[in-house]
Amino acid sequence: MTPKEKAQKILAADRFATLTGVELIDADKNYAVCRMQISENHLNAGNAVQGGAIFTLADTAFAMAVNNQGKLTVSINNSISYLKSTRGDTLIATARVISSTKRICVCEVEIKDNLGELIASMTGTGYIKDERLPE
Amino acid sequence: MTPKEKAQKILAADRFATLTGVELIDADKNYAVCRMQISENHLNAGNAVQGGAIFTLADTAFAMAVNNQGKLTVSINNSISYLKSTRGDTLIATARVISSTKRICVCEVEIKDNLGELIASMTGTGYIKDERLPE
Amino acid sequence: MTPKEKAQKILAADRFATLTGVELIDADKNYAVCRMQISENHLNAGNAVQGGAIFTLADTAFAMAVNNQGKLTVSINNSISYLKSTRGDTLIATARVISSTKRICVCEVEIKDNLGELIASMTGTGYIKDERLPE
Amino acid sequence: MTPKEKAQKILAADRFATLTGVELIDADKNYAVCRMQISENHLNAGNAVQGGAIFTLADTAFAMAVNNQGKLTVSINNSISYLKSTRGDTLIATARVISSTKRICVCEVEIKDNLGELIASMTGTGYIKDERLPE
Repeated sequence: MTPKEKAQKILAADRFATLTGVELIDADKNYAVCRMQISENHLNAGNAVQGGAIFTLADTAFAMAVNNQGKLTVSINNSISYLKSTRGDTLIATARVISSTKRICVCEVEIKDNLGELIASMTGTGYIKDERLPE
Repeated sequence: MTPKEKAQKILAADRFATLTGVELIDADKNYAVCRMQISENHLNAGNAVQGGAIFTLADTAFAMAVNNQGKLTVSINNSISYLKSTRGDTLIATARVISSTKRICVCEVEIKDNLGELIASMTGTGYIKDERLPE
Repeated sequence: MTPKEKAQKILAADRFATLTGVELIDADKNYAVCRMQISENHLNAGNAVQGGAIFTLADTAFAMAVNNQGKLTVSINNSISYLKSTRGDTLIATARVISSTKRICVCEVEIKDNLGELIASMTGTGYIKDERLPE
Repeated sequence: MTPKEKAQKILAADRFATLTGVELIDADKNYAVCRMQISENHLNAGNAVQGGAIFTLADTAFAMAVNNQGKLTVSINNSISYLKSTRGDTLIATARVISSTKRICVCEVEIKDNLGELIASMTGTGYIKDERLPE
């Protein structure tokens, strides 16, 4: 399997990502792009995209970037900054691993909308386990 | 309306919280407790509760704690630490505002499971706007 | 050596903590309290205590809490929230480990001043190595 | 005054930055570069550069990037990831504002050493006040 096929398989088995409408656009070693088409289901009481929806998109991109080969990596810390509200209809999260040691990796995720605006920015820290994801 | 009634109304209008199964247990000034009964829908490919689900529960509790009276408060930054996997069937997030100035509030959220284990911990920073939530 | 004696020894060998005036008040397993008496040297251009000074106090308390016994633990992520400016003359940081697994620990640090005001709050994530601190 | 001259003036008045050896390399609107030549004074008990020293360098670069023109901006949250230990003798922090609204700005800071290695990464959130820095 290519890294993208592997990421696609992991995403298909992720029921929360499926529930919330996260799709895979691309994936490679230490890299992934995911998308969420904004629907009524993603909105909060203020009619903005809920923070949890944006985070889920970003965190899933992070998971796809760090798990598309080899060992299982789990999140230990995520810090997200919400920068502006979107007026678009789609969010795109691009995750890039900026550092990886034997046990710890750090990944930056940029969340833009289809109008090109930067909506949020996340830094995720992962712990690399010895085990592998269930096939 | 009491703070709890106000929070209940906001939560009912939050479609992402509804989609993901977040319920309100309690709310008061600068305080809220929310619950998520874990179902198949919350799991990731590793059969653990997805990080986005835990975050959504925590972030919603934060939103209920800071928005159950007066002005609209929006998240500007959230940092979450994942501490252990749950073996329970329910997650409970307790949000407490630890500081509030004219414009900025900081809220700590503790996420435990029904077995009493501490599963995650989040700190949220909110920006207090002049406007109010749509009634 | 007791945990406090061990922490005292580590702090005495920490030249940056010495330069910046961090003192140890107390330490025990997964717990430490440090103090900084505010002087001219700690101020920024706005005559407030510089963020780096507050952070150094908090991070040193974190290091004392996680290193006063056994294995070497290094910081991998720290998130600090600045809550208010102090009008006191001393800052006190209390660090408590809230979670510890084989490799990862999470520590919350509360920074108050001598007037009892909560000045800042930090969450630190540490990675537990196999090696020990140089004796 | 140019932004760089303004930043230089603010840095000269920052006594903690002076104590800890932070120097200004460059500054422009929403941008600054600072340097720290590593000395004995910056080391912890493990003979690595203390986390507080790296943070102080990064936070000062952040402050220089957001305060070199106009209104006073204060830190409300900083999240730093420590990526690797340096084997170099100098650290260089480059701060870039990635988002700025009326009241809130977000700045990313990259900390490299003189060998070109990425040592740490910080995201800072600032609150933009109405007042100006004391001249």
